[in-house]
Amino acid sequence: MKNKTLPLHLMTYGVILISCNQQNITQSNTMIPSHTNILISAENNVSISEWSLSRDDFDLGSESRWSVNLTELKGGKQDGVKIIEVNNGKMNISVIPTRGMSILSVRYEDVFLGWDSPVKEIIHPKYIDLEANNGLGWLEGFNEWMVRCGMAFAGHPGLDEGRLLTLHGKIGNIPASEVEVIIDEDPPHTIRIRGKLNEVSFNGTNLELWSEVSTIPGSNSFRIDDVLTNKSLKDQEFMVIYHANFGAPLLEQGSQLYGTIEKVVPFDDFASADVNNWSSYGEPSLGIPERVNCIFPLADEGGNTHFLFQNSNGDRAVSFMYPREQLPYFSQWKNMDTNGYVTGLEPGTGFPHNRSVERKYGRVPTLKSGTSRKFTLEYTIHTDKDGIRAAVEKIQQIGNNKIEIATTVIAK
Amino acid sequence: MKNKTLPLHLMTYGVILISCNQQNITQSNTMIPSHTNILISAENNVSISEWSLSRDDFDLGSESRWSVNLTELKGGKQDGVKIIEVNNGKMNISVIPTRGMSILSVRYEDVFLGWDSPVKEIIHPKYIDLEANNGLGWLEGFNEWMVRCGMAFAGHPGLDEGRLLTLHGKIGNIPASEVEVIIDEDPPHTIRIRGKLNEVSFNGTNLELWSEVSTIPGSNSFRIDDVLTNKSLKDQEFMVIYHANFGAPLLEQGSQLYGTIEKVVPFDDFASADVNNWSSYGEPSLGIPERVNCIFPLADEGGNTHFLFQNSNGDRAVSFMYPREQLPYFSQWKNMDTNGYVTGLEPGTGFPHNRSVERKYGRVPTLKSGTSRKFTLEYTIHTDKDGIRAAVEKIQQIGNNKIEIATTVIAK
Amino acid sequence: MKNKTLPLHLMTYGVILISCNQQNITQSNTMIPSHTNILISAENNVSISEWSLSRDDFDLGSESRWSVNLTELKGGKQDGVKIIEVNNGKMNISVIPTRGMSILSVRYEDVFLGWDSPVKEIIHPKYIDLEANNGLGWLEGFNEWMVRCGMAFAGHPGLDEGRLLTLHGKIGNIPASEVEVIIDEDPPHTIRIRGKLNEVSFNGTNLELWSEVSTIPGSNSFRIDDVLTNKSLKDQEFMVIYHANFGAPLLEQGSQLYGTIEKVVPFDDFASADVNNWSSYGEPSLGIPERVNCIFPLADEGGNTHFLFQNSNGDRAVSFMYPREQLPYFSQWKNMDTNGYVTGLEPGTGFPHNRSVERKYGRVPTLKSGTSRKFTLEYTIHTDKDGIRAAVEKIQQIGNNKIEIATTVIAK
Repeated sequence: MKNKTLPLHLMTYGVILISCNQQNITQSNTMIPSHTNILISAENNVSISEWSLSRDDFDLGSESRWSVNLTELKGGKQDGVKIIEVNNGKMNISVIPTRGMSILSVRYEDVFLGWDSPVKEIIHPKYIDLEANNGLGWLEGFNEWMVRCGMAFAGHPGLDEGRLLTLHGKIGNIPASEVEVIIDEDPPHTIRIRGKLNEVSFNGTNLELWSEVSTIPGSNSFRIDDVLTNKSLKDQEFMVIYHANFGAPLLEQGSQLYGTIEKVVPFDDFASADVNNWSSYGEPSLGIPERVNCIFPLADEGGNTHFLFQNSNGDRAVSFMYPREQLPYFSQWKNMDTNGYVTGLEPGTGFPHNRSVERKYGRVPTLKSGTSRKFTLEYTIHTDKDGIRAAVEKIQQIGNNKIEIATTVIAK
Repeated sequence: MKNKTLPLHLMTYGVILISCNQQNITQSNTMIPSHTNILISAENNVSISEWSLSRDDFDLGSESRWSVNLTELKGGKQDGVKIIEVNNGKMNISVIPTRGMSILSVRYEDVFLGWDSPVKEIIHPKYIDLEANNGLGWLEGFNEWMVRCGMAFAGHPGLDEGRLLTLHGKIGNIPASEVEVIIDEDPPHTIRIRGKLNEVSFNGTNLELWSEVSTIPGSNSFRIDDVLTNKSLKDQEFMVIYHANFGAPLLEQGSQLYGTIEKVVPFDDFASADVNNWSSYGEPSLGIPERVNCIFPLADEGGNTHFLFQNSNGDRAVSFMYPREQLPYFSQWKNMDTNGYVTGLEPGTGFPHNRSVERKYGRVPTLKSGTSRKFTLEYTIHTDKDGIRAAVEKIQQIGNNKIEIATTVIAK
Repeated sequence: MKNKTLPLHLMTYGVILISCNQQNITQSNTMIPSHTNILISAENNVSISEWSLSRDDFDLGSESRWSVNLTELKGGKQDGVKIIEVNNGKMNISVIPTRGMSILSVRYEDVFLGWDSPVKEIIHPKYIDLEANNGLGWLEGFNEWMVRCGMAFAGHPGLDEGRLLTLHGKIGNIPASEVEVIIDEDPPHTIRIRGKLNEVSFNGTNLELWSEVSTIPGSNSFRIDDVLTNKSLKDQEFMVIYHANFGAPLLEQGSQLYGTIEKVVPFDDFASADVNNWSSYGEPSLGIPERVNCIFPLADEGGNTHFLFQNSNGDRAVSFMYPREQLPYFSQWKNMDTNGYVTGLEPGTGFPHNRSVERKYGRVPTLKSGTSRKFTLEYTIHTDKDGIRAAVEKIQQIGNNKIEIATTVIAK
């Protein structure tokens, strides 16, 4: 709404702002030989419906035939939802600006990060009532590979100081206010999808999340670089869980999870009965309830926590690492029910209890007024059996092959 | 979102898919000399805003000057709502894809199926909060001739196993994911408006309704052919009520309802006081509460239940029939209040108590995983006094002119 | 939806209706040398996205270079929100048809009516869940200079006869069904922005508000002329609060409020402790709770109540007047917290308790079926120190410089 000075990074690079004055006229295939492309901007009154950019629009010398496409979905409950599809030449990443910059799916060769939720459409937040069904309305839109939970609260629905906190918070159903695609001028010409989300209310939360998903053309990895800022003049509690969900075919009978882990503690009695098998996965089983394990990660010398999730053969895997300090807890969600066979591998600032419980156990951090917290995760997809075995061994060495398994459920 | 193989019925007829690539450019009067016309498809990313088709686009030899039009409404709370208007040459039927494929109204000569709700706009579901006002939010959009209630639950709001079930369920406020208009190639060249609705949540309901409204050009009748499928791998309870509402001028002092009926039972004490007059209607009366009668229908030899609702003169009427087995209960809603003078004549799988009550009385059927249930209703409009009298007599013979009237209210 | 006869005022002036048949094609700079311009009409299926009109489109002899612009916002949660910006040649007024015809802000020279809410975007009602957070969802969209509270209920959230009434009611989040811009043919060629809002539910409220904001080209004042009509056949309770909010720079340490006042009563104990300083304002203070004073206004001989709010220097001010009979109570909201430094100066039919409380004290009026109530407020912006002093003295004379200050809180 405001016609202010352009943000600094725009001026720095001498970028041309796409001023979409002609309402509703499609700007298809607008090619801009520049670095920053504004696709959505509440501040500058921009929202583009169709757009693409590829290596051929540049003279950057990149060998990979990368491209980025924005489309607007139509029909049913996905009408008006925007999707940004990044193809780095080898890997496809789909980001959903309209749904909190969630990542719908990632593909690399025959490896698919994502899952087969019964929810098939990419649901527009205007159809989601988070408070519905005792605070479980979030589940009507849940089908992404990775959805952030937070930011003022995450975890189970329930009362906290007299207020119903809804499942996994608001951030996954907030449409991005600013979205930009940046191509680094210098090699390796990293592609960055950046989006700003505001979780704000008068007399309440005022959290801003600048999210970034980036990948180097031709590579088999991508990064998440998020910055959460407390824009309020008051300090503010927050919770973040990176709810990343892995289904078939990577998940199958015999899939294995490895990590630099100190301790595994079952979330409840049902999880407790199977906690010794925490690292392995069975086949889908109709009607079996979810099991959650609360994991306390270790860090390597550089401070990073590592996980690797592989298929039964050990020839397809995804590994990921992040500074333990940023996300000191990790939830493993094993949903072996045939209706949505999936495992959530979820670094977080806490476990998925309601905030009222997490606070009691000291797992709800506070963000001081005006300060920020970074969250940096790097995911790599593996299709090489020897490489996967080597990565697993490295993880096991960091943990000295010693993981404590608790059978008593985590305190609640 | 998915670019899969086209559905079978499309390939069978060699249909051209309308690929609406140019976002937001109106495709007005697109004429396609084929049989299936995709107007909305979440699967194929199609949503057309303006469209029409008529007999003149075909060489099918139909005598009736039929047409079908799609328009998108603008302004207020109806902005973005799509309406499909079928004119079969004699009868107009308005279907609302954006609101659960409800039927807004039907007109045939001077007979109007519909009513004068205080809600005048066709409200977009994005403005409806079903949980508002203790689960009565549905009433802010209620003005259709026929709205389906269901499908996981219908009836009065209230707690069922700790969860607030909202009035008449979700289906009436779900936008259709797939909408197609089919013109039969063979005589009588039936016009079919088909729409798919998904009532789905992770870890919850996964019901799919393929609805169809069809009419033969030039006829005075139309059919509803719905197929409800449980897409979950778990069995699922369901409820369906065809909430068809008749107002003036068909409803007036002296209007009469006839049906193949075994028993009429008042819903509550207020209905009980007038249950002996169940079949007749009075004039509007300011502030009078609603009366509901619970009707147990009989079937004819073919298994069909018949109803006929006529005006005071007996020269205008609507009759309808359907297999009793599909919808074994029937609710008669007499809302004689001047604010919305209307009667609901409502075949259903149960009565409009909350699901928690209906379950207790064995009126909540279960749909096994992967199975379907059909609902088939045929409505005919009459403008011929003798024909109406004959139809009434036939109905009375089936019931042997014997209808049991209970004065004790239905158990609750 | 209905294609009825055009409303009377259109026919009277021989107006050309903008029939926006071509869906989604921008009608930019449509210039119509006529008096009434329909920008939104649910009744006639019109909703224009870009539009402007200015003095140069007329031969009316107005000296002031006035203009009116309609734009549609894009991005984030403001996607699809329409804004009408009136420039009367000296003063700018922004009206938000999509948000209940609220007034976003007013500017005259260096005087700004509005405030710096932490909510920066103009939130589309489709993203607002009024029932969220125990009925405080309204706060997620609260950033206007003036938002009407009402119309069936206003004030604090809470149960009234078993139903949760949400903070400040629905009217501020209802999109206008009809919007027109009228330029008076005769001098002084007043510019009128008119919008119709329906607060309606089957078996519930049926209130219609025709709102009008008008200004004379070149003037330093504007008027609000609202007409509330009970369209139901039943009588209906209603509440209206004109929640007008003043922030910096008009609000600063040393700002003063003057009014024709009989009595000032603190809303609660916290307000009571400072009620003797009711008329003066301090600097922002981090985390200080809001204070509300309940004011009983006096009227002048003509029946009008007068208020004036000035800056510390007394050289910038806004004054406003309205018939006391229309809005007999006045709430002064002092929100001195640095997170949203603002004062609400709020004429109303009652105080901002929940309706259940206000009813007990006789402050919830009833609107008989078919009848209307008018609300007329006139605001003037002052940039002349002597004029401000004279206006203050006049106000003080009306009140005889005697204002009763209660220290006991208003009964609850």
